[in-house]
Amino acid sequence: MSDHARALAAMRAVLGAEGVRADQATLERYAISCSGDGTRALAVAYPVHTGQVVALVDIARAHGLPIYPISTGKNWGYGDACAPTDGQVIIELSRMNRIVHVDPVLCYAVVEAGVTQGQLSAHLRAHFPQCWADCTGAGPDTSLVGNIVERGFGHSPYGDRARHVAGMQVVLANGELLDTGFGHYPNAQARYLFPYGIGPFLDGLFTQSNFGIVTQVGIWLMPAAPCINHFVCRLEDHADIGPVVDALRPLRLDGSLRSVIHIGNDLRVLASAQVSPQPSAALDGTSRAALRARAGVGAWTVSGAVYGSVRQVALARHALRQALRATRARPHFISERKLAALALAAKALAMLPVARSWTARVALGRALLDMNRGIPDARFLAGAYWRRRGGLPADFPAGADPARDGCGMLWLSPILPLRGDHLLFVHALVEPVFAAHGFDLFATYSMVNERSLCAIFSIVFARDDASEMERAKRCQREAFGVLMQAGYVPYRVGLASMAQLDPAADAYWRTVGAIKQALDPAGIMAPGRYAPAPPATRRPASP
Amino acid sequence: MSDHARALAAMRAVLGAEGVRADQATLERYAISCSGDGTRALAVAYPVHTGQVVALVDIARAHGLPIYPISTGKNWGYGDACAPTDGQVIIELSRMNRIVHVDPVLCYAVVEAGVTQGQLSAHLRAHFPQCWADCTGAGPDTSLVGNIVERGFGHSPYGDRARHVAGMQVVLANGELLDTGFGHYPNAQARYLFPYGIGPFLDGLFTQSNFGIVTQVGIWLMPAAPCINHFVCRLEDHADIGPVVDALRPLRLDGSLRSVIHIGNDLRVLASAQVSPQPSAALDGTSRAALRARAGVGAWTVSGAVYGSVRQVALARHALRQALRATRARPHFISERKLAALALAAKALAMLPVARSWTARVALGRALLDMNRGIPDARFLAGAYWRRRGGLPADFPAGADPARDGCGMLWLSPILPLRGDHLLFVHALVEPVFAAHGFDLFATYSMVNERSLCAIFSIVFARDDASEMERAKRCQREAFGVLMQAGYVPYRVGLASMAQLDPAADAYWRTVGAIKQALDPAGIMAPGRYAPAPPATRRPASP
Repeated sequence: MSDHARALAAMRAVLGAEGVRADQATLERYAISCSGDGTRALAVAYPVHTGQVVALVDIARAHGLPIYPISTGKNWGYGDACAPTDGQVIIELSRMNRIVHVDPVLCYAVVEAGVTQGQLSAHLRAHFPQCWADCTGAGPDTSLVGNIVERGFGHSPYGDRARHVAGMQVVLANGELLDTGFGHYPNAQARYLFPYGIGPFLDGLFTQSNFGIVTQVGIWLMPAAPCINHFVCRLEDHADIGPVVDALRPLRLDGSLRSVIHIGNDLRVLASAQVSPQPSAALDGTSRAALRARAGVGAWTVSGAVYGSVRQVALARHALRQALRATRARPHFISERKLAALALAAKALAMLPVARSWTARVALGRALLDMNRGIPDARFLAGAYWRRRGGLPADFPAGADPARDGCGMLWLSPILPLRGDHLLFVHALVEPVFAAHGFDLFATYSMVNERSLCAIFSIVFARDDASEMERAKRCQREAFGVLMQAGYVPYRVGLASMAQLDPAADAYWRTVGAIKQALDPAGIMAPGRYAPAPPATRRPASP
Repeated sequence: MSDHARALAAMRAVLGAEGVRADQATLERYAISCSGDGTRALAVAYPVHTGQVVALVDIARAHGLPIYPISTGKNWGYGDACAPTDGQVIIELSRMNRIVHVDPVLCYAVVEAGVTQGQLSAHLRAHFPQCWADCTGAGPDTSLVGNIVERGFGHSPYGDRARHVAGMQVVLANGELLDTGFGHYPNAQARYLFPYGIGPFLDGLFTQSNFGIVTQVGIWLMPAAPCINHFVCRLEDHADIGPVVDALRPLRLDGSLRSVIHIGNDLRVLASAQVSPQPSAALDGTSRAALRARAGVGAWTVSGAVYGSVRQVALARHALRQALRATRARPHFISERKLAALALAAKALAMLPVARSWTARVALGRALLDMNRGIPDARFLAGAYWRRRGGLPADFPAGADPARDGCGMLWLSPILPLRGDHLLFVHALVEPVFAAHGFDLFATYSMVNERSLCAIFSIVFARDDASEMERAKRCQREAFGVLMQAGYVPYRVGLASMAQLDPAADAYWRTVGAIKQALDPAGIMAPGRYAPAPPATRRPASP
C-alpha cells in the first residue's frame, strides 16, 4: 500500500467510504475547467463538519499529501474546482452547508463554507424577510464563503464582500482551529459584529491565500430597504462613458450612491440574452452594429441601484439626474410600481406583438431588482455560452453550469482608478489584443469601492475547439502582460496566472512565503494557490 | 564598549549625533506615562526618512537590541511613548512628517508616520479645501498613522480609520521594505485606491502588532460636504439611553447615519469643561447632581453629525426625529447658520450676563462642527485633568499634554453589541467597580460601526498621589477582569493589560506567535507589544 493509499484509507476511516471518492467519473468531473486547463485530483473528500476537516488536515500532514479546499467548486474560468497541480486531494465543503444562525436585529448570518447564495437568500425570504444578503451575478448555486475568500463582489451596498464579514473560523495546516476577531475568547459578545478583535487583524490573511481552510464566517446582512430603484443608462457612443464615470464618482464618494455601479459594453449586454450568431469567430463591426440596433443596446450600459425610504430614493434619483445632466446619460429607473404597470399592460395587450417584448422586459427588470436585494438568478451566466456551438442548453438557466456545459472562459480583472480617462485608456489597451486573437471583448467596469473600478474582461471560447482554446490562452497571457506593464494589476487571478504574479521576486511575496512557511511548513495546503514563488526559492521545511 | 553602546554608535553614524539621544532629560521625558507605569528607554532615535528606519532596524538586528517605534508618542493612558519593558531603543518617527501627496479628485492623502492630524487638517484647509480628513478628540498634535495602527476611531463617516486606508509601507524586522496592496508592483495605478491588492491581504497584520514599522500610509479623505449639522440629545434619566440606542441602530444599519455616534454620560460631558470640585475623591451623588443641574447636563448626551447636500441633511434630520419619537431624546441641531445667529446675538447683547454663556456655546458648537469636518481641537483633552490637583494648566488647551502635565489616566475599552440592553448591562458591571475604588466613572459609548458600540471608560487619577495611583491600577485590573469574564473584550489595550490578553494560550495567539517568529525571529521589534505569550513558550529562534 503506497503512502497516498494509506492516507486515503485513513480519510475513509473518518468520512466513511462514500465520503472519499476516487472513481474515474468523479475525478473526471472535477478535472473539468472552463479555462481548459483542468488538473486531475487524487481523490475528492466531502467532510460534513469542521472536526472532519481537522482530521483530514491531520492525515494530509502526516502523509505529506497536498489538499485543496473548495466550497462548491464553481470558480468558473478562474480554475473552477481544480487544484493548481495534479494529484492533490480536493476537500469539497459543499456538505458543510448549515446556516448556523441569523440575527435579524444586528443583521448578520453565520454560515458554513458550503452555503450557497441561493440557499441563504431563500432562508432569509422564508424566515427573516427584514434582512437581505448581497449577491453576485454568478447564479444561486455558488458559494458565499468561496466567493468571499476570493474577494469577489456583488451588486448591493454590501458588494465589497470582504468588508462585510466578521468572525472567521479557519482550520490551519497544523490542525488548529483558529477563530479570528473576538471569536477565540469564551463567550465573546461581539464575535460577529466587530471584525478586528484585539491584536493583529488576521482575516485578510485567509483571503486569496493558501494559509488555511475557512470553514465558517459571519456575514453582515443589509436591512431590507422599504424602496429600491434599479437604474439603467444607455450611451450611444464609446467615448461618452468617460464623462459619465467622472460625473458618478462624486456620488460614490459622498455616499449618495452606496451600491456597486456596473458599466457594461454592448457585447456584455447582448450576451446576457443570446449567443453569438457567428460563434466561430469574433463579430465583425457590421454584425455587431446590427445586433446592437436590433436589441436597442448602446455602446455602454450603466446600471446600479438606489436604496432607502421612498424619500431617500427620490432624493438619490434627483442627485443622479443632476450629476448626469452635463453628460449624455439619462437614467431610467425600474421600480416595483413600474414593473407591475408594465406587466399589466403586457397582459392586457397580449394579442399585440409588442407585448412579448414587454413581458421579457418585466422578467429582466424583476431579475435585476431581485439581484439588488440578494436574490440570485442564473440567467446572468448566459455570457459564458456566447460561442458555445450548441447555443444555450435546453435547461438554461435552471441548471446552468458553464463547466459541465463545455463553455470556455478566461478572465482578466484589473483594478483602475475610478476615472473616465483610465477606463478609456485601459479599454484601448485590451481591445486590439482581443481583436488580434479573434475574440469578442466583453467588458464590465464596476465601481467596487468609492475610488476604483474593477474591470472584468472575459475571453469566451469554444472549449471543444483546441486551436481556439490555444488562442484564448495566448490572448489572456498577452493582455495580462500589457495590463501589468501599464500598472493595472488584477484583483483576482485564475490558476494559470498565479505563476505570473511575482515577476520581480519582491518583498511582498517573500513575506507571504515566510508566513506560509510558518503556518504550513510541509506545504500541504493548496500548494501553488496565490503562491507564485517556485518552491526552490523557499526556505527548506523544518523537520 | 558594550554591544549596546556599539549599536548606539552605529545608529549615530547613520542619523548624526543629534539623531540619537540618551541624555537623562530625554530619557526621563520618554519615561513619563499617564498610566503611571513608565519604562526607561536605552535611547531615542529620530530618523527623518525610511532609509534611516531600515538602517536602524538592521543595526538593531545585528546587535540583538530591541527597538520600539512610536510616531509622536501621544498614546496617552495606553502606554504613552513608553516601550513595554526598560532598555528598548525608541524609534520616534515624528520627523518623518511629509505629506507626500494629496489627490483631491480621488480623495486621498499619502502621509508619513509622523504627520499629525492638525498638520494634515491645516494642509487640506490651505490647499485642498474640497477634502476633509477624519479626526479624533485627542487634539491636533497626535499622529494619524500611530492612531490608525492602533485602530483608533474618530467622529466622521470615515471614523473607522483602519477601513479607510490603502497602501502601507512597512519596514520589517529583516530590513525589508514592504509595500502592501498593489504598491509592490511597479507603476501600480490603484496603489492607494484599492486596499487588498492581489494575494493575501496583509494590512491588518500591521495593526495592533509588533510585526513591522509602518512608515507611510494612503489615507482616504471625505469630499467636503456642502452641509453639516451636528446634533445633540440630552437624556435626563439613566435608563432612557437603552431605547435611544435601539432607535438609532436602524439608522446606522440602513446608512441614514453614516458617522460615528457618541453617547457620553454626565461626567464625561462635565469634565470636558471643568475639573472636579473635589479632586481628592469621587463625586458624591449630591455634588454630582448639583454640577449637572448647574451645567444643564443630562444623565446622557448623544451626539453625532449628518453630512450631505442641504436636502440630504434635511432628510436625515427628519429620519432622526422620526426614529427618536418613541424615546425621550429630542435632537438639537447645530448648524453654521445657527452658530452665526447666536454669535451675533451674543455680540449685540454683550452687556447681559447671558451673553457670556452664549459666547461659550458658540465656541463649543464651532469646535464640534469643526471636529466633524476634520479640524481637531485640544479642548477635548480636558477630561484627563479632572482630578489634577492644580486644575487645568494656564496654557490649556494650546499646549495640552496630559503626560507632561502630570495627569493620571487608564482606559478600559470593551466592544459590545449595538443594543440598549448591552449598554445598560455593561454600565452596571463597571459602575460598582469604579465606586468601590473611589473613582468617577467617565463613560462614552461610540457606534464605531453599524453593529457594535465601543465603550470608553477612563479612570482619571492624580499621578502624584501614589496610593491613588495604586487604587487606579487595581480598579483597572478588576474592571478588565469583570468585562472579559462577561465576554466584553477590549478593542485596544494599554501596555499594562497586554499580558492579560491570552489567559487560555489559545490558537489565535499561538498563530500570532508563529507569524512573529517568521517575521522577526530575533524578537527585536517592540517585544511585548500585543504579544502576551511569554517568550518561553515560543519556538527557539532560528540561527
